[in-house]
This record gives sequence, structure tokens and C-alpha cells, in this order.
Amino acid sequence: MNILVLGGDGFCGWPTALHLSAAGHDVTIVDNLSRRRIDDELGVESLTPIRSIDERIAAWHEVTGCSIGYVNLDLARDYDGLLALLVESRPDAVVHFAEQRAAPYSMRDSRAKRYTVDNNVSGTHNLLCGIVESGLDIAIVHLGTMGVYGYGWSGSAPIPEGYLSVQVATPTGDVEREILHPANPGSIYHMTKTLDQLMFAFYAKNDGLRITDLHQGIVWGTQTPQTALDERLINRFDYDGDYGTVLNRFIMQAALGHPLTVHGTGGQTRAFIHIRDTVRCVEIALAHPPERGDRPAVFNQVTETYRVGELAELVSRLTGTKIAYLPNPRKEASVNELSVTNDRFLALGLEPTTLSQGLVEETLEIGQKYASRADVTKIIARSVWTAGMETSPDLMEQTPTTSVVV
Amino acid sequence: MNILVLGGDGFCGWPTALHLSAAGHDVTIVDNLSRRRIDDELGVESLTPIRSIDERIAAWHEVTGCSIGYVNLDLARDYDGLLALLVESRPDAVVHFAEQRAAPYSMRDSRAKRYTVDNNVSGTHNLLCGIVESGLDIAIVHLGTMGVYGYGWSGSAPIPEGYLSVQVATPTGDVEREILHPANPGSIYHMTKTLDQLMFAFYAKNDGLRITDLHQGIVWGTQTPQTALDERLINRFDYDGDYGTVLNRFIMQAALGHPLTVHGTGGQTRAFIHIRDTVRCVEIALAHPPERGDRPAVFNQVTETYRVGELAELVSRLTGTKIAYLPNPRKEASVNELSVTNDRFLALGLEPTTLSQGLVEETLEIGQKYASRADVTKIIARSVWTAGMETSPDLMEQTPTTSVVV
Repeated sequence: MNILVLGGDGFCGWPTALHLSAAGHDVTIVDNLSRRRIDDELGVESLTPIRSIDERIAAWHEVTGCSIGYVNLDLARDYDGLLALLVESRPDAVVHFAEQRAAPYSMRDSRAKRYTVDNNVSGTHNLLCGIVESGLDIAIVHLGTMGVYGYGWSGSAPIPEGYLSVQVATPTGDVEREILHPANPGSIYHMTKTLDQLMFAFYAKNDGLRITDLHQGIVWGTQTPQTALDERLINRFDYDGDYGTVLNRFIMQAALGHPLTVHGTGGQTRAFIHIRDTVRCVEIALAHPPERGDRPAVFNQVTETYRVGELAELVSRLTGTKIAYLPNPRKEASVNELSVTNDRFLALGLEPTTLSQGLVEETLEIGQKYASRADVTKIIARSVWTAGMETSPDLMEQTPTTSVVV
Repeated sequence: MNILVLGGDGFCGWPTALHLSAAGHDVTIVDNLSRRRIDDELGVESLTPIRSIDERIAAWHEVTGCSIGYVNLDLARDYDGLLALLVESRPDAVVHFAEQRAAPYSMRDSRAKRYTVDNNVSGTHNLLCGIVESGLDIAIVHLGTMGVYGYGWSGSAPIPEGYLSVQVATPTGDVEREILHPANPGSIYHMTKTLDQLMFAFYAKNDGLRITDLHQGIVWGTQTPQTALDERLINRFDYDGDYGTVLNRFIMQAALGHPLTVHGTGGQTRAFIHIRDTVRCVEIALAHPPERGDRPAVFNQVTETYRVGELAELVSRLTGTKIAYLPNPRKEASVNELSVTNDRFLALGLEPTTLSQGLVEETLEIGQKYASRADVTKIIARSVWTAGMETSPDLMEQTPTTSVVV
């Protein structure tokens, strides 16, 4: 297939682009490098030393002989460029990762809130509009989030894949309807993914666009078989309070000897997936697009659920690191149950990578190898959901370290 | 109350601003005059000769002694200006009409689709974000649309006001939940109002914003008691294929001797409200805001439902004008039932203005008075829902008319 990977320089996008290229697809990355600019804005870097996009792509060619294209384009602001790219490259499918993806960053301040909404909504809408204007039959695979659902209807009812059967009373008796699962986003970032869903539903209905929305859990891990081939191909590893995902943060904190930062009680249950499975799921979704005229296909892209506190205890047991219970900067229930259906990917052959000591240790090695690159003043989460909410002071002082040449 | 009326130069905004000013409120209109620019773009003008915003406001002061403020500001693009305005003027409430509001225009081409999404979503989000950043407790009354609902669950089940009770099966038995009514928008314009709803829900939940969403039917009529006080205060009257609302289009077509343009069979049932009731409903909503922490309040702002064909027949009987059945440029059911609950406004004292021969004749007088200003080449609807859909040729040739000095 000829595939554009929008946002192909990011944490999920880069390993997906490599995975699809390794599988023999013709891949072009489209990215405006906004994630690198946000690193600059936050004064933080990936714990792993990621290379420039050009060096990444050149290394991939050198190591594997496979070519990946690259176009620097701002999806939300350069509609004409996008349309021209679609018409010229005539892709079979577009994988759409090109959205601001961190909940804490999206709540940081009004500028970040507005950037998240404007960038994510206009970017997604430009893609939909551009495919219609191109007149081409281009399938879309979009990275959504489990966060569109909130936490379901009761602790015991598994969250279905996108659509929910309900009974509605009418004067002539109850009728059964299957509706898009009601939205209950927990941040501006998650809210933008609920807006995406409604745009997808409209464009599928009005224009027959073929759209798959992947409601992904929290990703952990760093490397895939492809990114591990050469250090120049290494994937990014975020550990800061805005972009770091919870399990990766614990692993990196353990590597550094920093207390494991649990917000609130740790009773929050979350859905998880390893980055290796993310890239496989995208490939499966590309191979099974909906038909023209179908509603958007929704897959829950998760493999396991855990309480945040359980994960902290696991890492603590493995490494001897203590746990620090900090004020929660989010507005959320202190304890929740979560049960998720993921039958569709299992039926299509996904063999889940589950949390294991081996994998945690592999990730811990990455954390230890690059620990000297960490800025410990960036670890504490400081983006709060409403003004005035309490946050923790830094738990570790920055100690000057010998400069390490990687 | 100190009230900002965003979009206060438009068809609903202007008469609302006058109504609130006449009722003793301190009103400031905030408008970037985008509706006038779209007239220029489409090469069409309000049938009624609307004056510049400055002349309108000066005339209002001259006629009534009441002052209305005016700020030229692009809500979607000038966040800093909006925030400064909120902080300086400290309004009690904001009435938000400032969205591109025509379904056909929103489907016209990709530029209009993108403008509608970018303008409406960013504008609404900037308002929400700005109120939070201001730290002020400012209530929002937003003009939504009945079009967020689609047409309900069955012909006999009235559409509730915003929220729907459903039964959801869980392993431990059925649970009842009240959910935001599922969205089924029929155009990009209507889609933006479904996106607004999700943003309102989030900001009400996370930040305690007090938001009322008015799900309005199709407005007809032109004048309110205030706009009729002086010709310089006259409200706009749109008759073109993109912006004209259906009953006003029939009335104007009758005044001109143009066939009444019914798209499809005329079997589509729609909800209606007279512009006099629009302004009263906004005043009622302002007087009954939700509490902090409440979910957004939703009122169905409609008074009657009619089939489009019935309305054409009514106007035809009154005026002897024939009806032309034209291809439908929209993707919609050729026949639908529609029943709508509007108990909340009735309970708060709204006395509905219902369709009557007298009111139709009053509106017809406006049509006749200004018929010579009409460009008959703008009457046929030409914006289609997907490329290649059939439209009608012009049904009347432009005849040079004596220039009428108004």
C-alpha cells in the first residue's frame, strides 16, 4: 500500500512508519515537527537521544535498504499543501497521528488549550475535507483514545468498541438503538478526540469516507524491533510531567532513583498497550478498512488494565524505589473501575504483549542507559486542571552530572 | 445586566441586542461584520436595506435614547482582544451568536467548509477559554440548533430538551442514564453545533461555567417591535439560496412572482420560530441561567413544526404563486416526521407567536416593499451536499427594474 503517516516523527508515529515500511509498504511521513518544538518550549528533551528526521530516515535506508519519504507540512494550517500532496501522491490510506496528544499539556494554560483545539480540530477537518476535494478513495486510520469514553456505565460493564446499544422509550414502546458511546472526556486533549468522532461520523455519512478510529490506551515501552536496529532509529522516551506516560515515568524515575510519583491514591484504573502492539494494531486496521457508506469503524486499542498504584508497586518491588503519593493535578475520581472490550483486534490476530518483568526490565535498561540526560526539575507534573490546584515541589535536586557523550 | 452580544450585527443578533437594550440592559455588540463580507463574497445583499453598524447604533440612540456599545472583534482570531474585553467590561452574561450559520453555505466548497469549522469551533472555544482565564463568573447563552438532533428516534417520540433517558444493559442488570441526545447533524454547519455541545459539557464539568444552549428551529419573519421603530433599524432579510430561510424565501418569492422553490417532495418536517420569539427566548434564558456545577442547560427554541410543502401551499393560497418542485441539493430523507418538546420556555412564560395569515402578510409587505432590490439569479440553491448533485436552472430572468430610492 501507499501510505501517508501524518505525525510520523512522534512517539507512536515514528515506530509505526518503520513497521509499515519494514512490512513492504510505501511510506511517506508528513510532519511539521511540532512535537520537537514543544520540547523546546518546555525546556525538556526525550530521555533517549532522538536524531533529526532526515538522519532517522537516512539511517533507516542505510540499515534496511527501505526508503521512507518525508514532507514537512502543517496539517492544520496548510490545506493547499495537503490537497496537493494527496492529489500527487494518491495514497491508498492515511494514518493520522498528527494531533497534540498530552492531556496535561492541553490543560497547561489558555495558549496550550487553544493550540490543542485549533490544531487538532482544524488538522483533522482539513484531512477529511481534502480527501473529499481530491475525489480519491483514501482510507483513514486515526489514533483516538480510550479517554473519549470516560469510564463506562458501571464497574462491571465492559466498554464496547465505539458503539453502545441502548433502549429508548417512545410512545409506541421501547426501541433499541446503537449509538456512538456517549463522550465524557477528562481533558481538553481528550475532548478534541470526541470532536474528531463527530466529524468522522458526518464525513462517513455524507461523503462515504472510510474511517477507522483507534481508541488507544496509555502506551508504554519505547522500542519496537525496527527502532532497536540502530541507535539512530531510537524512539523518543518522554518522562516529563506533561508528556511522560505513567508507566514509562515510573520506570525512568526508578532508573534515576527518584520516588515514583503517584497522583492521588493510585486507585485510578487505566488501559494500557505496549508500543510494539500499537504498530501492529495500525497495520491490522489498515488491512481491514470499512466499506464506503459504513459508519466509522472503532477498535479499542488496549491489551490490559491496571490500577496506577499497582504499577507503582510493581516497579517499586522490581527496583526497590519508594513511592511518593502527590496531590492530583487532574479532576477525576480518586478510584475507578475499568473494563474494556478489545475483541476486534484479537479476532484479527493481535497477540497482545502483556506487562512482564522482562519487558519492564528492558525498558528500565533504556532508562538507566540515558538517565544522565534527565532534567529532574521536569519530572513533577505542574499542569493543573483548574487554577490554584496544588502541586508537589521537586523531589530531587538537579545534581551536576558528567556530560555524557552518547 | 451587563451583556455582550457576540454576532450582534446578524439576523438574530441585531434584534436581540435591541430587545435587550429596550428591556434596560447594558448591551455591547461584538461583531467582526463577517456576515456582510459573506454577502459581498456571494454577490448578494439583504433584501431589506440594512445600514452600517454605526448608523444602526446611532439611530437606536436617536429613537430611544438607549446606548449600545460596539466592538469590532474576530472571536476566532483575536483571543487577546476578547480576553481584554471580558476583563475590562466584566459582563454578567455573553450571548453567543457569532458563528457561520447557513447549512448550504457550509457545504458550498472546501473553503466554506473549512471556514465554518475553523471559525465556529475556534470562536466558541476562545470564548470558553477566555471566560476561564478571566476568572469572572460570566454566564453564556449560545444559539444552537435543532439540527444537532437529526430527527429523533421515531415519528411519535418528541425530541427532548438536550438530554435523553436511555437504558443500558450491564452484567448486573439494566441501568438508566440521562445522556446528551445523540448527534446526527445534516451539514457541516450543524456539525459545528454538535462540537460546541461537547465543548460546553467539558467546560461546565471542569470549570463550572454556566452555559445555556438554545436549540433553535428555523427562524422566519423579519421585524421585531424594536427593529420596526425606524427604517434605519430594519433587520436583514436573506432570500438567496445559501442564507435565506425557507419560509422567508417563499414569502419573498411570492412578492416577486417567482415560483415557490420546494426541494424534493416537500415532505420534510421542520421546526419553526418567529424572530420575535427568538429575542424573547434569549431574554428568558438570560434570566434563568444554570448554577455553577450544573451541566449545560438546553432549551428547544421552537414553537411549531410544519412540512415544507404545507408552508409552500399556504403561501401559494395566500398569494396565488405557483410551486416549483426542484432537485434537493441536500442529503436527507424525502419525508420525515418531527415532534419537539418545548416545555421549558413555555413554563418560563413564553407566549408563542404562531404562524398566522396576519404575520405572513406583514412579512409579505416587507418582501413587496423591497422586491426591486432582489437579484433573481441568487434565488436558486446551488450549494450541493456532494459534488455532482443536480440543481435547478434559474426560474426567472433578471429584468431591469426602475431604481427605487428607499
